[in-house]
Amino acid sequence: MSKSVLITGSTSGIGLGIATIFAKNGYDIMFHGLEANGAEIASEIGKKYKVKTGYSNANLLDSAAIGQLVEDTVLQLGSIDVLINNAGIQYVSPIEDFPNEMYEKIIAINMNAVFYAGKAAWKHMKEQKFGRIINISSVHGIRASEFKSAYVTAKHGVVGMTKVIALEGAPYNITCNAICPGYVKTPLVENQIKDQAKAHKLSEDEVIEKIMLKKQAVKEFIPIDTIAEMALLLAAEHATTITGSTFTLDGGWSAQ
Amino acid sequence: MSKSVLITGSTSGIGLGIATIFAKNGYDIMFHGLEANGAEIASEIGKKYKVKTGYSNANLLDSAAIGQLVEDTVLQLGSIDVLINNAGIQYVSPIEDFPNEMYEKIIAINMNAVFYAGKAAWKHMKEQKFGRIINISSVHGIRASEFKSAYVTAKHGVVGMTKVIALEGAPYNITCNAICPGYVKTPLVENQIKDQAKAHKLSEDEVIEKIMLKKQAVKEFIPIDTIAEMALLLAAEHATTITGSTFTLDGGWSAQ
Amino acid sequence: MSKSVLITGSTSGIGLGIATIFAKNGYDIMFHGLEANGAEIASEIGKKYKVKTGYSNANLLDSAAIGQLVEDTVLQLGSIDVLINNAGIQYVSPIEDFPNEMYEKIIAINMNAVFYAGKAAWKHMKEQKFGRIINISSVHGIRASEFKSAYVTAKHGVVGMTKVIALEGAPYNITCNAICPGYVKTPLVENQIKDQAKAHKLSEDEVIEKIMLKKQAVKEFIPIDTIAEMALLLAAEHATTITGSTFTLDGGWSAQ
Amino acid sequence: MSKSVLITGSTSGIGLGIATIFAKNGYDIMFHGLEANGAEIASEIGKKYKVKTGYSNANLLDSAAIGQLVEDTVLQLGSIDVLINNAGIQYVSPIEDFPNEMYEKIIAINMNAVFYAGKAAWKHMKEQKFGRIINISSVHGIRASEFKSAYVTAKHGVVGMTKVIALEGAPYNITCNAICPGYVKTPLVENQIKDQAKAHKLSEDEVIEKIMLKKQAVKEFIPIDTIAEMALLLAAEHATTITGSTFTLDGGWSAQ
Repeated sequence: MSKSVLITGSTSGIGLGIATIFAKNGYDIMFHGLEANGAEIASEIGKKYKVKTGYSNANLLDSAAIGQLVEDTVLQLGSIDVLINNAGIQYVSPIEDFPNEMYEKIIAINMNAVFYAGKAAWKHMKEQKFGRIINISSVHGIRASEFKSAYVTAKHGVVGMTKVIALEGAPYNITCNAICPGYVKTPLVENQIKDQAKAHKLSEDEVIEKIMLKKQAVKEFIPIDTIAEMALLLAAEHATTITGSTFTLDGGWSAQ
Repeated sequence: MSKSVLITGSTSGIGLGIATIFAKNGYDIMFHGLEANGAEIASEIGKKYKVKTGYSNANLLDSAAIGQLVEDTVLQLGSIDVLINNAGIQYVSPIEDFPNEMYEKIIAINMNAVFYAGKAAWKHMKEQKFGRIINISSVHGIRASEFKSAYVTAKHGVVGMTKVIALEGAPYNITCNAICPGYVKTPLVENQIKDQAKAHKLSEDEVIEKIMLKKQAVKEFIPIDTIAEMALLLAAEHATTITGSTFTLDGGWSAQ
Repeated sequence: MSKSVLITGSTSGIGLGIATIFAKNGYDIMFHGLEANGAEIASEIGKKYKVKTGYSNANLLDSAAIGQLVEDTVLQLGSIDVLINNAGIQYVSPIEDFPNEMYEKIIAINMNAVFYAGKAAWKHMKEQKFGRIINISSVHGIRASEFKSAYVTAKHGVVGMTKVIALEGAPYNITCNAICPGYVKTPLVENQIKDQAKAHKLSEDEVIEKIMLKKQAVKEFIPIDTIAEMALLLAAEHATTITGSTFTLDGGWSAQ
Repeated sequence: MSKSVLITGSTSGIGLGIATIFAKNGYDIMFHGLEANGAEIASEIGKKYKVKTGYSNANLLDSAAIGQLVEDTVLQLGSIDVLINNAGIQYVSPIEDFPNEMYEKIIAINMNAVFYAGKAAWKHMKEQKFGRIINISSVHGIRASEFKSAYVTAKHGVVGMTKVIALEGAPYNITCNAICPGYVKTPLVENQIKDQAKAHKLSEDEVIEKIMLKKQAVKEFIPIDTIAEMALLLAAEHATTITGSTFTLDGGWSAQ
């Protein structure tokens, strides 16, 4: 029987890339995201790869909506075997001007939603004695950059939560790991390029070379497929002993 | 001229220990905490060590109140030179039963308050080209224990925030570091002993030996003075190059 | 055209498991190890998976022999595309009685040989603008256990070397990563069980439960295939941005 | 009664700075180093601060000489209470041209000597139920830079050894910690500036700004006193629970 995966933020960017590879590998997919054509994206991938799909635009700022998203996954796909917490937002500002409401929103979506989704999925995974929770953190889950106080805080928090869930999940074959990519060219990053260009008064090209990839030894954006393949490996049925770790894909950033 | 330090959660436990040592070393102290006799505690220490003191019971769940706490420090002591984010609460529960409101409260007090206090102190520290921000994180800022999803998440988040503040503060001689103690015998830990005893159905003595200090190679609680001395070293005027790091005092816990 | 991989210590245990999976995936394999029937093992796997194989029993204590091992790989397989430094020995003793010669030998085989092999492979990999160096370190590359001063030192050293090679290799598409497994049931570990049983005066079963897997949340030995699959992912042609990282597969050990 | 400290490499640079502060704080000092006037340096500091001193130029490449150095400390000062492994050498080269003999020498002096000194001091510290071992590692004990394969490997190795010694020492009140400084202006670094200038074809000033301190957020060399004060704190009689940790003093380098 095929396994099912809920991927938050999967109607674009990294999440869509992960969804596509999981579908290609026979997983049923619960899509989630705010794209207007989310339902269409879901059903097209479902047809293309002959897997069941669902779609939700649940509001990750609302813990009840997150609970419902998990229940909808079980209802529509029959189970929730893999949970990939991928949705995230970013905002760049010196701390002294960082808007409180943006700070709270980033913490809520990038970090608290991971707690609420994990909590909601728990009873299903515990009961079926199988669960794979994969948190898309960031190299900012283990290192910092200036002007990203909310994002770095949230991503470090997710790394901590990953470890707790791993420990609590061990008796039930629920594993939990974090993937920490360097810079991936997503809509999120394209916005960051613009924001940083403003903040630093540079051209967008200069931002890419001098800021974005300055900290990576390998001067390439991380391909979405690289992240997706790592997620696939972590989700595998036999990956019972891989848990509580961070998997850093960052072109040598954190090595320095 | 003496320097001033605001210490959150300083009317008991670790915070009070830190305040006492800082007073002994000539710092003016802004006390903060919920003890009914907080004002008394503050004035007694002020008399004993001949330093200026203030006291506030500001609600750390309220970002405006945190802003006011920082302003009150400046008003009452003349400046805010050192900010020690020490206040924290704990709650122990398997994730599946973890009350949402307790999760949110722990994140707010243990993590978000650090952001709001740092943000509020920023303009003063930047202007005076001097700031020392010391975050009392925990070994749970770098390692996990089961049943502590909120606490571990918050403490990891604080470690991340510490690094961002360090980077942003570098041009202004604002340093930021985290101290990560293992188990300290505070009122908080005494409650944890009780909670864990219930959760694991053990006596309190067994909890101390088999759970609390199980992970430490040195079977002693971390003395409050050890933390206070580390804080004193980080706060020093000449400690300009110590920034962005975690200082782990944990009896060998994280080495294993 | 198929790629070639040199795997040290590949005639038994983890190395043999990795070799088998790489052969299954079409890699030509240079086997290395001290097993008397090493050449036979190599040719059998070659036949079974229809790949080229070679075999050497080069002495890893001798830097010239390591250089020759790399040259033999190129001679016999046409190139050295992937280098997996897997060979290792262990010795368990309190530091005060640790024999100097055992310390030196562990450092030489587990750590220095990684340097010499990397150095020897460098010019080939640099010239062909492709190289994947995978160091089988250990959870002891990031955490310690008592009575293993040489092993933990060597494995941490390898993690450091991994990062340097990653940085130096970045311009040439040479990546370098470390895999850090928890306890794997290899001949090495079976010997450790015996040694620890003596050191701690316990039965072998008690050693497994109370010592070997005490630190893992998941009470299973890490399967060799789990390590091999991770190595396969790191070796991939498109894995250009995965470099300088540690990939920890430890049943939640290091999360605690 | 005063405590005694053996500091390797203490006739110049960081070691001399540490020795001076320890002498000022009443410690008897065993100096060690290769400076021709080492004995003079030792006796001058002894007179100035009214403490006992000794001097040795033991060859750290020779394990027996290291053992003798420890015994000489006990003979001349009455005990060995604190051991500060500070001696170190550096060599900068791309891995492919890195001379084998320089690699071996760096591993021997920067890493193996720490093992031999710790092993030799063990029985004394165990017997007296007091020991403080402080290893001067480097930010290169937790991060890498290119062209420093031997140094980074050795310094990571020392961090690993620190953790093992901490665990084994716990029952005997022997603590062990590592201090990881960023760039300190020592004779060693002044040579590095020259070497890097050659390697990168830059002026020495450019090396300082663009290479040496490029990775630090705070653009100042780490003062020797900052390291010495941290060592003093770690050596304290009451610092029983501080063990197995790294204390990073790096101007925000590793935070990024």
